Amino acid sequence: MKISLLLTGNELMSGDTVDSNSAYIAQSLKDLSLVPYIKKVVGDDTPLLVSSIKELSLVSDVLIVNGGLGPTVDDLTALALSQAIGSPLVRNADAYAKLNEWATRRGFVMTESNLKQTNLPEACRIIENPVGSAVGFRCVFNDCLIMCTPGVPSELKPMVENHLLPLIREHGSIEATSHITRLRLFGITESGLQDTVNEVFPNWPADVELGFRVQLPVIEVKFATVGDQFLELNRQWAKKFETHFSDYVIGRDSTRLSQALNNALSEKGLVLTSAESCTGGQIAAAITSEAGASSVFEAGYVVYSNRMKQQSLGVLEQTLIDHGAVSEAVVVAMAEGALEKSGADIAISISGIAGPDGGTDEKPVGLVWLAWGQAGKIHARKFFLPMGRQGFQRTATALAMDLVRREVLGLPTNVDYFSELKKKRIAN
Amino acid sequence: MKISLLLTGNELMSGDTVDSNSAYIAQSLKDLSLVPYIKKVVGDDTPLLVSSIKELSLVSDVLIVNGGLGPTVDDLTALALSQAIGSPLVRNADAYAKLNEWATRRGFVMTESNLKQTNLPEACRIIENPVGSAVGFRCVFNDCLIMCTPGVPSELKPMVENHLLPLIREHGSIEATSHITRLRLFGITESGLQDTVNEVFPNWPADVELGFRVQLPVIEVKFATVGDQFLELNRQWAKKFETHFSDYVIGRDSTRLSQALNNALSEKGLVLTSAESCTGGQIAAAITSEAGASSVFEAGYVVYSNRMKQQSLGVLEQTLIDHGAVSEAVVVAMAEGALEKSGADIAISISGIAGPDGGTDEKPVGLVWLAWGQAGKIHARKFFLPMGRQGFQRTATALAMDLVRREVLGLPTNVDYFSELKKKRIAN
Repeated sequence: MKISLLLTGNELMSGDTVDSNSAYIAQSLKDLSLVPYIKKVVGDDTPLLVSSIKELSLVSDVLIVNGGLGPTVDDLTALALSQAIGSPLVRNADAYAKLNEWATRRGFVMTESNLKQTNLPEACRIIENPVGSAVGFRCVFNDCLIMCTPGVPSELKPMVENHLLPLIREHGSIEATSHITRLRLFGITESGLQDTVNEVFPNWPADVELGFRVQLPVIEVKFATVGDQFLELNRQWAKKFETHFSDYVIGRDSTRLSQALNNALSEKGLVLTSAESCTGGQIAAAITSEAGASSVFEAGYVVYSNRMKQQSLGVLEQTLIDHGAVSEAVVVAMAEGALEKSGADIAISISGIAGPDGGTDEKPVGLVWLAWGQAGKIHARKFFLPMGRQGFQRTATALAMDLVRREVLGLPTNVDYFSELKKKRIAN
Repeated sequence: MKISLLLTGNELMSGDTVDSNSAYIAQSLKDLSLVPYIKKVVGDDTPLLVSSIKELSLVSDVLIVNGGLGPTVDDLTALALSQAIGSPLVRNADAYAKLNEWATRRGFVMTESNLKQTNLPEACRIIENPVGSAVGFRCVFNDCLIMCTPGVPSELKPMVENHLLPLIREHGSIEATSHITRLRLFGITESGLQDTVNEVFPNWPADVELGFRVQLPVIEVKFATVGDQFLELNRQWAKKFETHFSDYVIGRDSTRLSQALNNALSEKGLVLTSAESCTGGQIAAAITSEAGASSVFEAGYVVYSNRMKQQSLGVLEQTLIDHGAVSEAVVVAMAEGALEKSGADIAISISGIAGPDGGTDEKPVGLVWLAWGQAGKIHARKFFLPMGRQGFQRTATALAMDLVRREVLGLPTNVDYFSELKKKRIAN
């Protein structure tokens, strides 16, 4: 089965936007054991869209068109499809009903621009968009299933999962069932993982296809088999893998680190508090981005200045003078202060130099101290994360969550993150 | 001048590798005021490469082929070009000399695989590769300048700079320069913007191409003209647009809302504090994600529970009982408490129901109260954001930052966000 992608948008041509949608679609197609045949990207240019749709529909069984569904004049997909397949644009009742419902729910009045989004080629049926205002639409032309999808990644993703894959399966009479197991790991690099697999599992079975996908800060490992006869093999090797990497595995499927942490806290009936300097609230924000966070999190302190570390958390001025804000003594005092002020069971605290400025020879940009634990049992570690301000904050936040997850679950917290895993494991 | 790109490699189709080469080439082409016309990506498939080269050479003035120049069996570019243009593969003396020199310098013995890289279509001339072993090559076919380049980014980049751009300039006799102006707006929907432009600027000049790009939570508006003769027109209409949308414009180019806020605070010499319930630290995290945040932000309070609202910020128990946690009275008390505890100049506070649970008929999921201002001058507004937990938190955080930005800059804070802009403006 040949699946082609046609992506549209001037922003994709100018190099200003890196196209992540096609990689997402390609990754998703792996669930059907499919790889795209042709990927074509063009700007907002009606004649070029028309000729591209015609051309790709002739050489493909499925054509996924992405982008150009919005309400503005540079959104040309419906018009181009209409011309390509020779089916006039008409008000689509289903599209209208969906958009009306969407607008009503938000108290919006539909505008002319919105209404434009409900004019679709007569031959098309809609593909529901559970997230945004623009429905997708589909038709069959030249025996090719053409599906038009929104360019906004958060709208595209649920549409791919819920609608595109089933429609492709149906169109292609794909029968062999693929089985996919997904594990999510934190603290290992992709290459470290690959090297370890090569050495620890030299006889990895060819029928269990192993795939890695970096989704910072975690890595997703996918075990794919095609055909029911390999289901047991899939489970068995996924289990071997999980056993080997044990405490690095934070969960299955789409588990986020924040979910894994909240689940661990919830399971043990513990409430966490955070005291953040260099991450400025990102740890608290990650934890509370999860539904149900209120049962495991009540209070967070963002103490960006030395003055606030003293005032909010009772860190002694002398400790700051003697050791500096980025030190073991200060993060331990921050954690103790947060426990005392909030009455929480367990604390995480962090102080580091995110950069770009503020580094010294002794304490360079990228240095970070973390402390965590329950009253009377506070531990601390330092890390060096010289990866730019954004990378520093994101990685430090992830390390903080993972250390608390490990502490709560009684897993080792002195692990070698991101580096020497392979050698250590093999030496053991 | 139409420039197309043809990228090849199975790894690009599977979604495992994100193609950064085409964005690099597109960015480089900006130096010639060019934007790629078509970008096509295919796997290692000779017939498909042959037909793609033929097809793209017919509709383009320049075709850049990227990838497939290596020594292995899946490197098919020279073979495909040979078939596409009908020019046999022969040992190219220049390619051989370069490769021989490269190997000698490194003490390598040339292998059969290496020698394969010196077999090029007879009609081609080489393009030097200052970094790696694979030379590029070029020819003119269907009046199209075809240039084949290596897929390894570190080899591609010097080749683009040193050879491709001069060759394109020469081939196209390029003269016209394009000018781009970018504005960033917050608080207007894409469709609202489009409708307003249609009605307020019915005579928008065709020579100033207007483009919108949603980059949640902001919208980027781009004004593009081609040719120096339209530079003044570009400036003039961008200015008209900026004047009309005035306070919705947060900045130019890639300005983020957090940057706009921090700049405003810095300009007025004000320090902000945040008191967050439902956003759980996202406001503080956004502000401190920017370098230099320490001069405008010292302290943030994440008070997820009623108990912590009282304990950390001094909200009275009676206020919580009388009005509920999601109320004007409580957010005002939170802002006052944060100002008092932190000593900051200006506060932002927020309390709402992010969901999925916790809503009632009177206070549904999506309801949020915000308060902001300086001591003795606290203002409050409520919003209804029924867009899922993630969308709720993201939008509430953005509204919080924008309200403080407006307050600090003396702009109206009673604006109609995201909805009735058009009608109000036109009525005025």
